[in-house]
Amino acid sequence: MTIETKKNSSSFVTKEWNVTGQKEVSYSVQIITNIFNVNNKSLIKNYSTDFKKVIRRIIFVDGNFYNLYSKTILNYFEKNKISHKIIPLPIEESTKNIDYLNVILKHVDDFGLSRRDEPIIVIGGGVLTDIVGFAASIYRRGVPYIKVATTLLCAIDSCVGIKTSINHFGRRSRLGTYFGPLISYIDLSLIKSLPNDEVSSALGEIIKIALIKNKKLFNNIYESSNKLLDTNFYKTNIGSKIINESIFDMLEELHENFEEKILKRCVDFGHTFSPVIEMRSLEDGSVSSLKHGEAVCLDVLMSSCISFNRRLLTKQELNKIFAISKKINMPINHPYIQNVDYLMESLLDATKHRGGSQNLPLPIKIGNYEFFNDIRLADVENGIKTYKKLSN
Amino acid sequence: MTIETKKNSSSFVTKEWNVTGQKEVSYSVQIITNIFNVNNKSLIKNYSTDFKKVIRRIIFVDGNFYNLYSKTILNYFEKNKISHKIIPLPIEESTKNIDYLNVILKHVDDFGLSRRDEPIIVIGGGVLTDIVGFAASIYRRGVPYIKVATTLLCAIDSCVGIKTSINHFGRRSRLGTYFGPLISYIDLSLIKSLPNDEVSSALGEIIKIALIKNKKLFNNIYESSNKLLDTNFYKTNIGSKIINESIFDMLEELHENFEEKILKRCVDFGHTFSPVIEMRSLEDGSVSSLKHGEAVCLDVLMSSCISFNRRLLTKQELNKIFAISKKINMPINHPYIQNVDYLMESLLDATKHRGGSQNLPLPIKIGNYEFFNDIRLADVENGIKTYKKLSN
Repeated sequence: MTIETKKNSSSFVTKEWNVTGQKEVSYSVQIITNIFNVNNKSLIKNYSTDFKKVIRRIIFVDGNFYNLYSKTILNYFEKNKISHKIIPLPIEESTKNIDYLNVILKHVDDFGLSRRDEPIIVIGGGVLTDIVGFAASIYRRGVPYIKVATTLLCAIDSCVGIKTSINHFGRRSRLGTYFGPLISYIDLSLIKSLPNDEVSSALGEIIKIALIKNKKLFNNIYESSNKLLDTNFYKTNIGSKIINESIFDMLEELHENFEEKILKRCVDFGHTFSPVIEMRSLEDGSVSSLKHGEAVCLDVLMSSCISFNRRLLTKQELNKIFAISKKINMPINHPYIQNVDYLMESLLDATKHRGGSQNLPLPIKIGNYEFFNDIRLADVENGIKTYKKLSN
Repeated sequence: MTIETKKNSSSFVTKEWNVTGQKEVSYSVQIITNIFNVNNKSLIKNYSTDFKKVIRRIIFVDGNFYNLYSKTILNYFEKNKISHKIIPLPIEESTKNIDYLNVILKHVDDFGLSRRDEPIIVIGGGVLTDIVGFAASIYRRGVPYIKVATTLLCAIDSCVGIKTSINHFGRRSRLGTYFGPLISYIDLSLIKSLPNDEVSSALGEIIKIALIKNKKLFNNIYESSNKLLDTNFYKTNIGSKIINESIFDMLEELHENFEEKILKRCVDFGHTFSPVIEMRSLEDGSVSSLKHGEAVCLDVLMSSCISFNRRLLTKQELNKIFAISKKINMPINHPYIQNVDYLMESLLDATKHRGGSQNLPLPIKIGNYEFFNDIRLADVENGIKTYKKLSN
């Protein structure tokens, strides 16, 4: 850091100190096996400089996951003689709010967490890692935390980045921070028992990154989607390969722009039309609730239709994109993706979020993209027409 | 940023990506004159790349200050034809809480704030800049903000650093972030009408930094305290000099350790015994409420007594420290600073906050310090005895 002192830099400013410097950011994403094996010390490393210090851990864990794994988790901490407090939480998108944030903070405060050497552990999907990450980022101005993914979507999305958030004022992720974990752990054995629709939903996000960045990855998913769904990516070469590539592609996009200083982000692909339809689908009992990856995939399809109408994709390519989405059982007939009002509302909101520019990434062939800023109502309306034809 | 990929880095980890890099931190502290002069464009710069963009501002302003300055502020934005929303807020230490945080966030959300180019303006003392800064840091994962100090304490303390916070779970600053403003503005003309006890309170913080870092500054305050109190630091050479030195000394200490990675901080001087007595004094109607700078100064005196008992300060030096505190009307007879239970509770809490080490900075002569980790009950009890003698 440097301090530059200036005198009388303008007719009004008599003294000025400019402070500039860098802050170290560092974390790691690890594919791990047997994370709860008693001999695997990953979650209970001593982060204190004092080697005699008693190691303690507070653990927030997804309620459903805990129903399946409580014995395994308890056994891990007990056999390792680690003082621990486990809090199973039933948080989902609709309860990722300030009330639950406060519940989490209260547990942390009651635990008497030390500021630097007792990383909070969060074991769950993206919703739980987002909210616990947010709590960690604001408790005493930030305490370390460790993520363990229990869903595929979390593994290839939330675990890769440093965003934390809660929903607020009826908007997705309206409050949050950029605050990376110490480590994100991905143990595919935890994911093997995931319901099929969760795996499909994650594939929605993988298709997103593949379609704009990695043609080979796209084709790999296209060819092995059945196997991926059958095995939940567990113990198959192709499953590991796809996860590794998808994590690396995501990291590559994020790592130069972690705090979104640049509001032109290709990873926003699939996140322009989806936020409003996802949130509304959760509130409206008359339609099926959309999972995040599903909503993203529907947005990918709509964006691809707009792309096609601008002759940026061939008919054959567009067909392939719809085919892959059908193969992985995306709810492509959901009414909201054809609701022009919701799509325009979401586009407007995204535009505001991107500093007043649409910066809509559209696929150019499979494996490339460009940003567009001239999307009008007619584009969306024509997009819906094209979508209608292909979704049948 | 770099991504380092590793394979099989341990018997459990099959793949690992280590992401490391730097995040740019940059802000400026400016001593300014006539901040609300219509020709002074400091608060209404166009931060957008789009020069045609309509410039808007949302302004949170201390309620008492607004009673005095509403015409000036309104005139500034109106004459400059800046679309604006001004929100006077009555926040004080006891209402610097999550409810008011939400009120602030709601105003920001209703304003439809753009993410990057409409900095929130906060005009007030440290309490208001802390809470609005916190809101700015979590709204859409961080939006820019600008501070304008209306108190001397804010000018030489909150405006200099990047900490934001609210009180929670009955503890000072239990929630918060490190999130610097774009710019902190200090216009001494705004401070000239400050009540005397506010000026005294700020002097408490200035004495803190002077006593451990800057003997000349300490002596300057000692010699000119009457003048400083008479003029509120306004339009006097000595006032400007003391403010400039105190800001620079503070910046120098903070700038290499903005996020408190190092938990040994000499600026913690005065902040070991004070947090509990300050908070309790606000809750207990039977004693006078302590202002932050007053509580800090009482802690400085107690720490100096402990120092003296360890022969790190001479009797003459200790007398001088008490004399200066009396000169600036510190409430040295407040009962809480002689309450051994509160002092020990606060010390324990500070120790936890400092990662398990006391890291208590004690003055060594005037102008130097060392850290200590061996403070016991007896030290505090003897400190109180010494304090008693000198406070009479």
